[in-house]
Amino acid sequence: MNRQELVAQIRLKKSFLCVGLDTEWAKIPAHLLDTEDPVFEFNKAIIDATRDLCVAYKPNLAFYEARGPQGWISLQKTIAYIGTSHFTIADAKRGDIGNTSRLYAQTFFETYAFDSVTVAPYMGADSVQPFLDFSNKWVILLALTSNAGSADFQFGVQDDSVPLFEKVMRKAMTWGTPESLMFVVGATHPEKFADIRKIAPDHFLLVPGVGAQGGDLEALCHYGLNSEVGLLVNASRGIIYAGNGLDFAADAREAAADMQRQMIKLMS
Amino acid sequence: MNRQELVAQIRLKKSFLCVGLDTEWAKIPAHLLDTEDPVFEFNKAIIDATRDLCVAYKPNLAFYEARGPQGWISLQKTIAYIGTSHFTIADAKRGDIGNTSRLYAQTFFETYAFDSVTVAPYMGADSVQPFLDFSNKWVILLALTSNAGSADFQFGVQDDSVPLFEKVMRKAMTWGTPESLMFVVGATHPEKFADIRKIAPDHFLLVPGVGAQGGDLEALCHYGLNSEVGLLVNASRGIIYAGNGLDFAADAREAAADMQRQMIKLMS
Repeated sequence: MNRQELVAQIRLKKSFLCVGLDTEWAKIPAHLLDTEDPVFEFNKAIIDATRDLCVAYKPNLAFYEARGPQGWISLQKTIAYIGTSHFTIADAKRGDIGNTSRLYAQTFFETYAFDSVTVAPYMGADSVQPFLDFSNKWVILLALTSNAGSADFQFGVQDDSVPLFEKVMRKAMTWGTPESLMFVVGATHPEKFADIRKIAPDHFLLVPGVGAQGGDLEALCHYGLNSEVGLLVNASRGIIYAGNGLDFAADAREAAADMQRQMIKLMS
Repeated sequence: MNRQELVAQIRLKKSFLCVGLDTEWAKIPAHLLDTEDPVFEFNKAIIDATRDLCVAYKPNLAFYEARGPQGWISLQKTIAYIGTSHFTIADAKRGDIGNTSRLYAQTFFETYAFDSVTVAPYMGADSVQPFLDFSNKWVILLALTSNAGSADFQFGVQDDSVPLFEKVMRKAMTWGTPESLMFVVGATHPEKFADIRKIAPDHFLLVPGVGAQGGDLEALCHYGLNSEVGLLVNASRGIIYAGNGLDFAADAREAAADMQRQMIKLMS
């Protein structure tokens, strides 16, 4: 899905919601555990319940990897079930030397046909470029993450100039364009969105950290929204584990609808 | 495998060689492609040919992931085949918020029973800690990587103090000990090993970049070796693709033996 199509979907649905499919075995409702593939059955129900309310789905790879080879089969089925109507994000935070990053890119863009993958910047240009070499695919680069540990290195001022997260963004903007590159900016730093929009006025930002991690949607939208919306706000646990009984999908729908109602107001 | 056992293996074998199992489908010798699991058959032959010459094996996860679920089955079989005689490294470069890193740790330490996993530091303490919480397991944290892109951020001086790679090492040394934490330091920066040994005299260093990437074993050993050796030097392509015919395993053995002969001299 290209930028124009993504923006059109956001406007059509009045939503910039991304649903994070962090499907943890221990949290799958009991009545699904007898099915052949409980992870896929859970995801399928969540997707059916939220499809019209969100524009993107973001499986977090850790939750699939932890299930062994079967986890990757569940992931494949999930991606196929989502289809091409939604922007898909492999939240994998990969990044390695060039020949290795090329294989990670093949994995997520070809073997699993995701639209995008999250990438860690620590290893620099040649660890990111192989992902950008795929046409009509996206890199979503970690800039300012939502966790407490973001303070350890990302705010460190580099070479008397700018904080590391800003240096990452400025360098990466010479590698990719707003058509191929987004940034991860955590909702737990709402005060930083004004600075970030000065650095990257046009790039889409993938924003985790609303909900379970405590980020405030209204505060980040105040500075983060741009003329093409420019945000994908992710919620994972707050939606997919809104309930855990027979009605878990309806509970998830209600949680997603609540966020989408807030988004309608913030977009207008 | 704990530190004491690793050092004992190194002394016994007079080798601190790690063989990187970066098994790429396109490079598997033709005669193996008719077998049920060519990736595993290739690895098995390489392991048989090098077992007495090395102390560690490092599968690079990208090469397995790119094969879909089958790749993870090949990986499982490979790890089982290596057994407990060698130190095993999941070269995965993972790192995410705490609840996600915990699942990555489970994946590599429990589902696949690796001794260690490479971790990217960008997200800070709470992205690394869940890996350190497993007893008798190791984090191998990226410090100074071997690729050209290492110059983009890792050398940037943070907060008027030290380069980012040094800050990463100094912080991480407050999270883990020489019994649970190693660092990745690329062989392509031999001039940095003296500085690095001042920062971390006791920690093991995993050193990629000898061979295909051009690093010089003698130069890095000059400063990198410590009283317990303290180095695991990895070679991947230079060993496993030393030949590509029927005799590929014998060619790999010769390449590994050549490195081990250099190591005997450097250790004495």
